[in-house]
Amino acid sequence: MSSLLEQLIEALRVLPGVGQKSAQRMAYHLLERERGGGERLAEIMKEAMAMIGHCARCRDFSETDVCPTCANSSRDHAELCVVENPADRLAIEQATGYRGLYFVLQGRLSPLDGIGPAELGLDQLVTRLGEGEVRELIIATNPTVEGEATAHYLAQLARQANVRPSRLAHGVPLGGELEYVDRGTLSHAFGSRSEMA
Amino acid sequence: MSSLLEQLIEALRVLPGVGQKSAQRMAYHLLERERGGGERLAEIMKEAMAMIGHCARCRDFSETDVCPTCANSSRDHAELCVVENPADRLAIEQATGYRGLYFVLQGRLSPLDGIGPAELGLDQLVTRLGEGEVRELIIATNPTVEGEATAHYLAQLARQANVRPSRLAHGVPLGGELEYVDRGTLSHAFGSRSEMA
Ligand SMILES: [Zn+2]
Ligand SMILES: [Zn+2]
Repeated sequence: MSSLLEQLIEALRVLPGVGQKSAQRMAYHLLERERGGGERLAEIMKEAMAMIGHCARCRDFSETDVCPTCANSSRDHAELCVVENPADRLAIEQATGYRGLYFVLQGRLSPLDGIGPAELGLDQLVTRLGEGEVRELIIATNPTVEGEATAHYLAQLARQANVRPSRLAHGVPLGGELEYVDRGTLSHAFGSRSEMA
Repeated sequence: MSSLLEQLIEALRVLPGVGQKSAQRMAYHLLERERGGGERLAEIMKEAMAMIGHCARCRDFSETDVCPTCANSSRDHAELCVVENPADRLAIEQATGYRGLYFVLQGRLSPLDGIGPAELGLDQLVTRLGEGEVRELIIATNPTVEGEATAHYLAQLARQANVRPSRLAHGVPLGGELEYVDRGTLSHAFGSRSEMA
């Protein structure tokens, strides 16, 4: 049976990018200088793991059945922005003045990994586009090979439902990930998005 | 009132070297792929913050009044290795074949920061050296200006108690921190420690 300290170091390695040395440093830091912060982190982490699910409308993380954004009637329900993951949604929300809604794929089309339309909730998206409320589908998948393929697939779905598809303007660096783009570039790219041909 | 997710991101920033972006990435990673690991981390962190104190003999972190190392009668109680902090102790324990005991200062002499002999538990160390069991005091403070000053002070205390002081051999890079030294270098330096003149 290993000590509590060893167990803590081992458990910290579940965090992304945290190896043995970083985990050790984190454990010692908490014990030496941040007991209160560590207690609070433990409490919130426990609650978050148990209580955070997915919004039934947009698939983003949410504590409630429908997230505050989807439930907000003052947002423009005619614009729907599709992103790959919650971090991309947050980056757009923070960098731009966008007031429409979102749809979070939680991935991108990747047939070799067994990720097809069903895994990305696209049946749900098709139903929604068919309801007639959405007029523009803003496709903000990442400018990678798989992201581009996903974008073209989404544009097709939009056209079939008579919804105008658009794509963020060039300006987002090719091969980059939205969540790491600086706010200015992202805001500019968002503002000068173009209709997809 | 911010969402649970926002609270989790904020709480993660208590970890050393974790800013807003890393905290976000950690939160999303846990929610997307490591709920079980996150629950386990929360549980152990809570227990660790509450239950881990300091060993009454060596001042290292310990769940018990006296830590397993100090309580281990098969270790050599005639050798006492003084380190600045628990990470240094762990580095020596993992890199060398040392079978003696440790004394953890939890710092180093730094008069400008108000850290004097009392804060480092040196009265406790003097008492222990006076008991006659310790024959060699292996001084393994870091090779920094303050670490060297601390080493000389410790060597004086040892001589006053008729205990032989020794210092790790050159080989540990100057200005470096023990916990980041590779095992081979550290093991060599530990093995060829020299008596202090
Ligand atoms: Zn939602
Ligand atoms: Zn101990």
